Parts: sequence; C-alpha cells; structure tokens
Amino acid sequence: MLEQGSAGVVQPQSFTFAQDAPFVLESGATLSPVTIAYETYGQLNPERSNAVLIVHALSGGAHAAGYDDQGRLGWWDDCIGPGKAFDTNRFFVICSNVLGSCYGSSGPGSIDPATGEPYGLRFPVVTIGDMVRAQAVLMDHLGIERLLCAAGGSMGGMQVLEWAARYPERLASAIPLATTARSSPMLIAFSEVARQAIYADPNWQDGAYYADGRRPDAGLAVARMIGHITYLSEQSMHQKFGRRLQDKERFGFEFNTEFQIESYLRYKGVSFTQRFDANSFLYVTKAMDYFDLSVPDGLAAAFKGASAVKFLVVSFTSDWLYPSYHSKELVSALTAAGADVTYLDILSSWGHDAFLLEVETMTGLISSFMNRVAREEGIRT
Amino acid sequence: MLEQGSAGVVQPQSFTFAQDAPFVLESGATLSPVTIAYETYGQLNPERSNAVLIVHALSGGAHAAGYDDQGRLGWWDDCIGPGKAFDTNRFFVICSNVLGSCYGSSGPGSIDPATGEPYGLRFPVVTIGDMVRAQAVLMDHLGIERLLCAAGGSMGGMQVLEWAARYPERLASAIPLATTARSSPMLIAFSEVARQAIYADPNWQDGAYYADGRRPDAGLAVARMIGHITYLSEQSMHQKFGRRLQDKERFGFEFNTEFQIESYLRYKGVSFTQRFDANSFLYVTKAMDYFDLSVPDGLAAAFKGASAVKFLVVSFTSDWLYPSYHSKELVSALTAAGADVTYLDILSSWGHDAFLLEVETMTGLISSFMNRVAREEGIRT
Repeated sequence: MLEQGSAGVVQPQSFTFAQDAPFVLESGATLSPVTIAYETYGQLNPERSNAVLIVHALSGGAHAAGYDDQGRLGWWDDCIGPGKAFDTNRFFVICSNVLGSCYGSSGPGSIDPATGEPYGLRFPVVTIGDMVRAQAVLMDHLGIERLLCAAGGSMGGMQVLEWAARYPERLASAIPLATTARSSPMLIAFSEVARQAIYADPNWQDGAYYADGRRPDAGLAVARMIGHITYLSEQSMHQKFGRRLQDKERFGFEFNTEFQIESYLRYKGVSFTQRFDANSFLYVTKAMDYFDLSVPDGLAAAFKGASAVKFLVVSFTSDWLYPSYHSKELVSALTAAGADVTYLDILSSWGHDAFLLEVETMTGLISSFMNRVAREEGIRT
Repeated sequence: MLEQGSAGVVQPQSFTFAQDAPFVLESGATLSPVTIAYETYGQLNPERSNAVLIVHALSGGAHAAGYDDQGRLGWWDDCIGPGKAFDTNRFFVICSNVLGSCYGSSGPGSIDPATGEPYGLRFPVVTIGDMVRAQAVLMDHLGIERLLCAAGGSMGGMQVLEWAARYPERLASAIPLATTARSSPMLIAFSEVARQAIYADPNWQDGAYYADGRRPDAGLAVARMIGHITYLSEQSMHQKFGRRLQDKERFGFEFNTEFQIESYLRYKGVSFTQRFDANSFLYVTKAMDYFDLSVPDGLAAAFKGASAVKFLVVSFTSDWLYPSYHSKELVSALTAAGADVTYLDILSSWGHDAFLLEVETMTGLISSFMNRVAREEGIRT
C-alpha cells in the first residue's frame, strides 16, 4: 500500500468568464460576468487525460483537500491526496465552488456590476444544469476536453449525473454517491421549510441585508438545524446522542438545552451562520428542487448518450433523505441506456452523512474503481 | 352492521381543581388552580364501568367527536359515535385537553392568579405524567374509578402508556397507537428545531406576547411545517404531491411557491397559527421530550402492575417518526410483564398520519378489540 499523504497547503484559484457575452441560464436570465472559484491538486499529465472533477454538496466549497491558508482541512481530504482514493500522485483533481454559493463563485452575495451593490435577490435563480455548464467552461479554460471522472455525493451526485446526461462524451467515469436523479417531494419539503425559516427572519430583509450588518442568522441557524436532522438516521442519533443530558445530571424542566442532541443541533446551527450566506442557502436549495433528469422522456432517455461512461453508484441503507430506491431506479436507467454500472447499497447506520463518514469503505471502493478506470483508459502512473 | 351516526352537537365542559391545595408537578413546581377542558359522548352506565378515555396528540383538543357550536367536526369523529368503533351507544367516551395546551385547559396562555396576566413562560413545565395525573383527577370528579379503555395515538399513545404504568388498576384495556414508550433523540431533535423556530421569532418576546398583539406567527408556522413533513412518508409525499407544480405549467425560477408540496406546507403552517398558541407548542413538545417509561428500571418493570390490562398496540410500517421497532420493544416489555397484548404492524404508506388516515383498518381493529374487552368485562349493551 502506498504511503498516504496530504495535498498540502492549497491556494484558491479563480476563473472569470462571460464578461462580453453573458452566460445564459436555464431560466433564460443572464449573468455577466461569471466567476468560479476552484482548487486543484496533483498535476495534469501531458495527455490531459487524468483530470478528476470533485463536486460538492449544499454547503461545501472548492476547498476539498489539503489545508487552506488558515490551516483548515478540505471537506473530502479523507479521499483526496497522495496515495488516497483520488490519488494526487496519479490524478489531477479539481474542485470548484458551485454557481450561487458563497465561497468565491458568483452568487447572491457577489457585486452586481449594474449597481455596484451585492445582488441579493436580483441574482438570477440557477439550476444544477447551470452549475455544471459553468464547470464545463472551467474545464475548457483548463484545457481539459474529457474528464477521467466526476465524483460527488448528495447535491454533488446530482451534478455528477448532470455531467453524465449533458456531456457524456466528456466523461470516462462517474461516481454519484447518496444522491438521486430526481429531487423528491420530501427533499423539496425540507428545503422549503428551511427557506421559510430564513424568510421569517426580519433581518433577512428580502435578501437585501448585506449593507446594514443585520444578517438573518437566527433563520439560517434554524434552516441548518433542520438539515442536520436529515443527514443523520434514527439509529445513528441513538448511537451518537441517545437521551443523554447535556452537562447535567437530571432534567432542568426549563427551555434551555436539556439533551445532547439539542446542544449538537444548536451548535451546528449557530456555527453555520459564521461560514455561510443565507441567500446562497436559498439559491442552492432551489437549484436542487428543480433537478429532475427524468423530464421530459424518462431517466433511461436522459442517459442514452452515456453508454460509454463507467458508473460507480453508491447508496446507504439508512439514508432516508436519499433512499436507496432512488439509486436503484438510477441504476436501472443507466443499465437500460447500456452503461457500465457498478452499484452498492452499503449497510450503514449513519444516514445520509454516511458518504462522508464511512471513510474506510468509501476509500476502498473508490480506489478500486479509479484503478480500474485508469487502467482501462490507459492512464500512465 | 349497525347504522353509524354522529355524536351530534357537543358542548364543551370544564373542571377546575387544586384551588386550595396546589397540584404538585413532576418538576416539583406547583399549579393552582388547574382547569381541564373536556367533552363527553354517550352515557355512563349505572355500574360506571363503560368509560373510555380518548387522549389527543400534540395539537389536539377535547373536541374529539360530533360538532362543536361552530359546526366543526371532532378530530377523531371517524371512530367515535353511535355504531362507530368507540360506540357511544355502548360506551361513555371522554376526551380532555392536556395540561399545557390552549384549548381550555390550564396552559401558558391562562391567567396567572398571582399577576392577573397570562402566565407565558412563568407557567411551569409539565410532563406526560402530569397530564395523566390531571386526567385521573378528572376521572375522580366524574365518579369513574376504573376506565374500560384509554386510547390515543402519537402523544396520545404516550398518555395511554403512562396510564397503564401509573394506574394499571384503573384500566381494563389500553390502545396505544403509532407511539413509543420512550421519546427518541429524533423526536427530540425535530421538536427542538421547531421550538428554535419560535424562539427565533422576535414577536415571541420570551413568551410574553399576549399583551401587545404581536404574536410569533412566523415562527409557529415554520414549527408546524417541520411537523407536517414528519407526519408524512417519502412514499405518501410522492402519492399526494409528487413533483407537481402549484397553479403553473412550468417553473417560475423565483422564490414564490413552485411545487404543490410547498403550497401544502405553507398553508398548513399559516392555518395552524390561527388555531394554536406558540407557547403551548413549546410546553407540549417539552412534555414529550421528557417521556421515558424505561427510567429507572426498564420498560418491563414500568408495566409490572399492568399484567391484568389488555393492550392493542398498533404501529405503521411507513411511520419513520415513531418507527415500528419502538412498538415491538413495547410489546416485548408488556409481554414480559405478563400483559395480554395484541400487536399489529400495519402495512401503510401514510407515515405517522396513518393512525388517523387508515380509517377502515383502524375502525375494524378497534371495534373488534372493544367488543372483546366489553364482553370480557361484562359490559351490558
């Protein structure tokens, strides 16, 4: 086994396009210019054939591996680095922040050149398709015609599937994890309630809160707490928290925190407000709501061009937010389209979070799959 | 089959106690006086042996059957009335509003005699045990020494189990539906996030909002929306809403309502604010959090006095808020305690709401069980 190392200290990069001709979104609205923040790890080979695109979930950013200049570890450092599953000794790994987010890419907190003020709700609504088309422009910029792999979980998995449906000729393989090809009414429901929590905060001010420093932190914290419940499972909550009390021996019979699970959620909610923008939360969840590759002709038709793409599809038995049957429907459609599909429904108690928490299993799976893809694609090591 | 009828127009009743000696709560705090709102349907027989206590869930009240003076149907009218499962031609049915609620029983919106103002957060925190002990005082007042049955779902089921554990000698039978003997961390998590949505509303004013007319409606609506997601199942959301749009043919790419599921949740949230008090929501959810009959000696020990009680325990396969395994653990404990238990895990796609929606199945089950209990208890028809 290779020695595993770190991707080291990574510098954020940025690419701006659509300065002259605006970027036309699926809604018909336009955006100009468009900036995409990204990071890269490893080296592009002379054949430009070893590029792997990592795509992030709702609250993620481009910093996927190594350390940033404040010493913070990337969100998928477990899987990206020298000797790791996405082995940066062999692959050129790219991660970019999605359109609409708040980690360097264009989003509602960006400056609207028309006004010199942050967009707020004047920023156009974007889709998963828009995010992926912007990533494709970034790949053009980097001189990457075809990706060896696109990989990600949750909303990242939606982007992976969008890549496979929209640009199958630009993709040798795809790893959609804990995801769906069609956002479910339950996903929409949780997102909508989270958005309502933000709308209900008077500090939200219809999204125009950037100027006066009153930010909708209370609403955003509630929105994030809702999310954190859905990322766990009933069983993992028993394992992780049970009915244990927080820093007390007996019930206080009061409205302060009694149980550890309450303390955990409050902490997660409050800390999220220090790192995420409430308007970006609205835009990114909306993009997920719209995601449905089964329109207009069904899933198999959506992937009809992807027969040469190799897929590793993974779901987790306790993931009730993206239930396994969504992945099974996806696998059926991919198989019907003639694609090469490896599917695993992994027994795990960790709920949706399993795609980040089941490190050993995921590392083994992804390593094997990437080794096979690299071999079949003739990537020199 | 008997002709089924309505319980007719029902007058609310009210009983006040603890005027002199205060009611001591599990927390050690006291309450004086205590008012319990209730309704009754049917007639108490001369032996006083045909009384059935119906207990309600989080947002319910005493109006369980027939019509109130504004023509509104009771919340369990499907099952209570002449010829129905709880046959008011045979049984004397009582339903009371729980302590801490806002439908006539003492709660945070009641007047604190010490100040002449509504209690707000000065109202003491109550437990499921406190609710049930207040119901027992009401039974004393009505001259009912022993109930033929106590029945209810969700938080109502918790009260049924509390009755069986605390007053087994006062109970011939018990019907706990879609419930648990021990509130789970997931239940606590959802309740806490809902409470946080209320706390985050500046109109909540630490619970002292009764005077100025600014009520925390926005926070309470979000709290209720969270609840409504948990009452459905992933499958029932697909059946009921799917990804259908609300009053439009195509996406609007805006932050107004796009999908029917969003419209449903918004409607449920807003309409709840017209009928429920935000502080009562806090108190009643807190009472559920504390509920754990397994403390201190395990569930079997909790029910050791209930060996003569007949139980009908029902869970629903798609209820992920009160998963079936909770009922199975309960059944094991009841069986270990020597009780007579009938258990059904009903195949249903309706999630937690199934206990109210699976009318035909529930009517048949409860009718059979009540007929058997009445026969074995020698109730004259």
